[in-house]
Amino acid sequence: MRFCANCGSQVVQRVPPGDSLPRWVCDECGEIHYQNPKLVVGTIPEHEGRILLCRRAIEPRYGYWTLPAGFMENDETTAQAAARETQEEAGANIEMGEAFTLISVPRVNQVHLYYRARLKNLEFKPGEETLEVALMDEGQIPWKEIAFRTVGLTLQRWFADRGRGIFGFHSEDIA
Amino acid sequence: MRFCANCGSQVVQRVPPGDSLPRWVCDECGEIHYQNPKLVVGTIPEHEGRILLCRRAIEPRYGYWTLPAGFMENDETTAQAAARETQEEAGANIEMGEAFTLISVPRVNQVHLYYRARLKNLEFKPGEETLEVALMDEGQIPWKEIAFRTVGLTLQRWFADRGRGIFGFHSEDIA
Repeated sequence: MRFCANCGSQVVQRVPPGDSLPRWVCDECGEIHYQNPKLVVGTIPEHEGRILLCRRAIEPRYGYWTLPAGFMENDETTAQAAARETQEEAGANIEMGEAFTLISVPRVNQVHLYYRARLKNLEFKPGEETLEVALMDEGQIPWKEIAFRTVGLTLQRWFADRGRGIFGFHSEDIA
Repeated sequence: MRFCANCGSQVVQRVPPGDSLPRWVCDECGEIHYQNPKLVVGTIPEHEGRILLCRRAIEPRYGYWTLPAGFMENDETTAQAAARETQEEAGANIEMGEAFTLISVPRVNQVHLYYRARLKNLEFKPGEETLEVALMDEGQIPWKEIAFRTVGLTLQRWFADRGRGIFGFHSEDIA
């Protein structure tokens, strides 16, 4: 950040009165520009024990496999964001299940949230940001070609919970 | 938003190519300024069945009661944010428990997350944004003077779960 979004003047980094962290502050109009983590929300779409994965058509991690997910938008709930991303990236219609993993990734100022979900039918197709979509059983998961650690961790937890016969909620951090 | 934080030119609202929603776009430097929901994170600090509540010394909802919570910052995890806010607002040291409620509030573009927690001792005191701090049992909760619906809902779920003897995880929306 270099300029004030409110008045266009140059901003400076300083700890405002009563605050404890440096912020981008505009001395011209007084605006303080806070910067906060973003939520990335997605699903684990399942059909008869197999999981729907998407191969990324965009950077970062072009060509790697991921669960359908993306940045939560204003004016929606977390579950609406998860359903929207699943439709956009995989063309898939789902029945939304329970929240499953909540993973902080402070290195990139993100929090990732994945919901369990069931495919309503087998009509899915890659969206603009996806090269291909595939249903995979546990033995087919390309563990070394998974795009993000939050996706790998979510898939591990999902197969472990399925093995135990009970799906829980998992809150974790990636250092 | 009126000016580009990157170059200081005036921004316009437009749907960028390949996107589906209007964004603040800078035609001078090409920057797209996304706006996303913020995470508000806090705790339900418990001591022998009583809950620590804070009476707000700031707007909005000055004078109303709340659980300790606030905006998650960059460079921290959700649990670290929850502990920090509990220390800042109530001067309380806690042992962090499990994530308990995750509540979308699309009207204000926020997602609220509350953790269960145990007070390590009875040394607590109001921070700068708090008028007073008090430990309350269920009968003492000032239900009509609770600052935010997410706090009221979280307290309801907490006492209901305690009554059943099992604490779960609750994902909800406030329309």
